[in-house]
Amino acid sequence: MKIITSTDNSFIKKLRSLSVKKYREQFGLCLVEGEKVVKEALKIEGLVEGLVIAKSFEEKFSELIQNYSQSVTLVTDEIFNSLASAVTPQGIIAIIKTLNNTKIDLNKNIVVLDHLQDPGNLGTIIRSGIASNHSQFILIDSVDPYNDKTIRSATGTIFYASFFKMNKSEFKEFAKLNSLNLLIADMGGKNIFASKSTLITPYALVIGSEGQGVSEDLLALNHKTIAIPMDPRVESLNAGVSASIIMFNLSNSFKGKI
Amino acid sequence: MKIITSTDNSFIKKLRSLSVKKYREQFGLCLVEGEKVVKEALKIEGLVEGLVIAKSFEEKFSELIQNYSQSVTLVTDEIFNSLASAVTPQGIIAIIKTLNNTKIDLNKNIVVLDHLQDPGNLGTIIRSGIASNHSQFILIDSVDPYNDKTIRSATGTIFYASFFKMNKSEFKEFAKLNSLNLLIADMGGKNIFASKSTLITPYALVIGSEGQGVSEDLLALNHKTIAIPMDPRVESLNAGVSASIIMFNLSNSFKGKI
Repeated sequence: MKIITSTDNSFIKKLRSLSVKKYREQFGLCLVEGEKVVKEALKIEGLVEGLVIAKSFEEKFSELIQNYSQSVTLVTDEIFNSLASAVTPQGIIAIIKTLNNTKIDLNKNIVVLDHLQDPGNLGTIIRSGIASNHSQFILIDSVDPYNDKTIRSATGTIFYASFFKMNKSEFKEFAKLNSLNLLIADMGGKNIFASKSTLITPYALVIGSEGQGVSEDLLALNHKTIAIPMDPRVESLNAGVSASIIMFNLSNSFKGKI
Repeated sequence: MKIITSTDNSFIKKLRSLSVKKYREQFGLCLVEGEKVVKEALKIEGLVEGLVIAKSFEEKFSELIQNYSQSVTLVTDEIFNSLASAVTPQGIIAIIKTLNNTKIDLNKNIVVLDHLQDPGNLGTIIRSGIASNHSQFILIDSVDPYNDKTIRSATGTIFYASFFKMNKSEFKEFAKLNSLNLLIADMGGKNIFASKSTLITPYALVIGSEGQGVSEDLLALNHKTIAIPMDPRVESLNAGVSASIIMFNLSNSFKGKI
């Protein structure tokens, strides 16, 4: 176990930099906080690079400290609070490796998020995605999944997801090259509750941004459009909610076939 | 058109009090802000009691001011900002009548929210509820639907919903007296995607609180339990998301039968 008491310590400075996307990408690391989510992360081999525990929580987490002694850094409460983003810090942070060395598995379904901007919505989509057997996410110019709001809203499910960042032209190339079976969620599409038998798996489900929907040039790709039928007085659903409804309905209509 | 420039004006004080649930209930009024949602409210006859417009938005809303001149109060920007809760006030607020004189229609489906606490979740459930033809909401000791976060997250759909507040024993009495066909969303229930043919309509769908689920004494009532099948690594879905998935699936499996 290491003990750090100086706020100027270079390791602490590095951890603090992980609140910025650029440094998360540079170091291939991010921070997750809270007992529950840290314990979830520890279940997955090779995921946790280290633990940071606040001095006043040393007794509470004594068992964890004993079991992971090599990876624990004990810090003053002042240092801990400078790293934590939660309103009520729970005294424990895990340093997580975000580097993704896996390749996209084209035999499995993919969820494509096109310019999704709201971190809470992304977290909701990851959580519902993992719950409905969608674990591959292509992020086209979307919010970073490793920011603290997304991690909080995804709860522990973020560790079971694979993320692939692309820009729009990279995705278009990728979709054409692999003849992706694109299902685009958009107004006026086929009723998701009625058209199940006409859809095939694996698919790449495309969800558009909150305000704008799916970009014009993705709509120009070969695809099927699907939609949730709604009362005409309602303009749209929340992006996280509509993605969740579609993912669960697709996954349950292909049960046993995937 | 009235013009008010004093922050001490009694009408302004009354409006300011509507940020507190107690006064919203006492006066039977609430405030909604933003051009889009105000215009949505004006479509519904008898709903809007008055409009409050900020001085610097007088020109922008000149057409509205002309059309609703009798009901418009023009105020200084300072007064307006003391009433608005949005980070970027849009210069217009509608005073809405929340008094609900309608009775519960037992021939239509009902959504029952049991100790729901998060205002954003309630807004999501209202929005998805209206979109999926559920417009009656029984609120058992739940968050007030007329707080600003719920209104924002429900968007304009809140005006199409009817709310009935009850405490737990009132609801139990009501459920027994009317032999409500209760569908309770809970772990281990019947798979919502597979058990449609065994369910009947009209129903009262019961959604539990975020942390605790449905109360023990509601589970003691005669009911069917339904659930969303999930990857076992995921503990739960967001309450707004799971309610939305269930409402849309129920509503679409009974299409034409309701």
